[in-house]
Amino acid sequence: MSTTEVHPNGVDVTQLVRTVEAIKNDPSLAAFRFRASNTWLGGGRSRTSIDGFYGAGDEDSSRTTPFTLEGDEPPVLLGENTAPNAVEAILHALASCLAVGVAYNAAAQGIELRGLAFDLEGELDLHGFLGLSDDVRPGYSDIRVTCRVDSDAPAEKIDELCAYAQRTSPVLDILRNPVNVIVTRA
Amino acid sequence: MSTTEVHPNGVDVTQLVRTVEAIKNDPSLAAFRFRASNTWLGGGRSRTSIDGFYGAGDEDSSRTTPFTLEGDEPPVLLGENTAPNAVEAILHALASCLAVGVAYNAAAQGIELRGLAFDLEGELDLHGFLGLSDDVRPGYSDIRVTCRVDSDAPAEKIDELCAYAQRTSPVLDILRNPVNVIVTRA
Repeated sequence: MSTTEVHPNGVDVTQLVRTVEAIKNDPSLAAFRFRASNTWLGGGRSRTSIDGFYGAGDEDSSRTTPFTLEGDEPPVLLGENTAPNAVEAILHALASCLAVGVAYNAAAQGIELRGLAFDLEGELDLHGFLGLSDDVRPGYSDIRVTCRVDSDAPAEKIDELCAYAQRTSPVLDILRNPVNVIVTRA
Repeated sequence: MSTTEVHPNGVDVTQLVRTVEAIKNDPSLAAFRFRASNTWLGGGRSRTSIDGFYGAGDEDSSRTTPFTLEGDEPPVLLGENTAPNAVEAILHALASCLAVGVAYNAAAQGIELRGLAFDLEGELDLHGFLGLSDDVRPGYSDIRVTCRVDSDAPAEKIDELCAYAQRTSPVLDILRNPVNVIVTRA
């Protein structure tokens, strides 16, 4: 991992400070709206396209090509194993979010990271999804995340960093606390 | 979308019924544990590897190659735009989950789908992630999903189908209700 004074952990801290100052001056710049479109492909398969979003006071046009993510199920869940399933994608979202949070906040605090990795597992009881019990929730009851940080910083500093990254992680908040989700049919 | 009597909507209903019966006979078969490993790649980039899982009473070994998902941020969020970000991955997970739920339950109910698609958007205020306010949650405050179902079935049937798929959707449950997430440092 190459780092410089300007970009510790590959993070442009100068721009990070600039962003924070800009939002302090104009709080409306903090409003973001992310979007995705998904098309079912038959069976358990679907494809999500992710492109523009609104943020920092404007429609973002930095992406020249949409990103594509696919979902499917393994054979034991009646799928064709062409892609990870939806609850596995949740684990990816959580890990990706914590990676950004730890790396950015480490950079802001001058903590250099040599490496950062996460192992995740989630427990799910299929009674809920299959409609076999009203007492069993369809989703994860528990998710466990193990975080490995490789850095010369003192253990106490790394613990603080990880605690702060947890408090400010969008996906961790989304999982730990209720989100208002409205589903309507067009 | 090619369908047959055995596989309406590309779903093996015979196996679905068999799975339900097997779990009724041995509830322990419903316990699933999904896993993911994530490695930070510098800046806002990370890569998640998804492979085996535990379910249906055994370690699943149907996947010969791990799936890989990448995360990054757009330039306005200090990234390099190489992949969707974590909260966009959440929208994918939700869409992918609803697609499976609607398709499988339609198949089980004998409703043939010609098409199924979702448009999603999520509202997020960056004050939380940036640590600029304790009053603003870091994650989505609201997610809106628009579902488009193309089918000859009566609108009432499709409405019921969509309502049932919502009640039993693992990811919708994970977003709408708190999940116990434990993060520890190795």
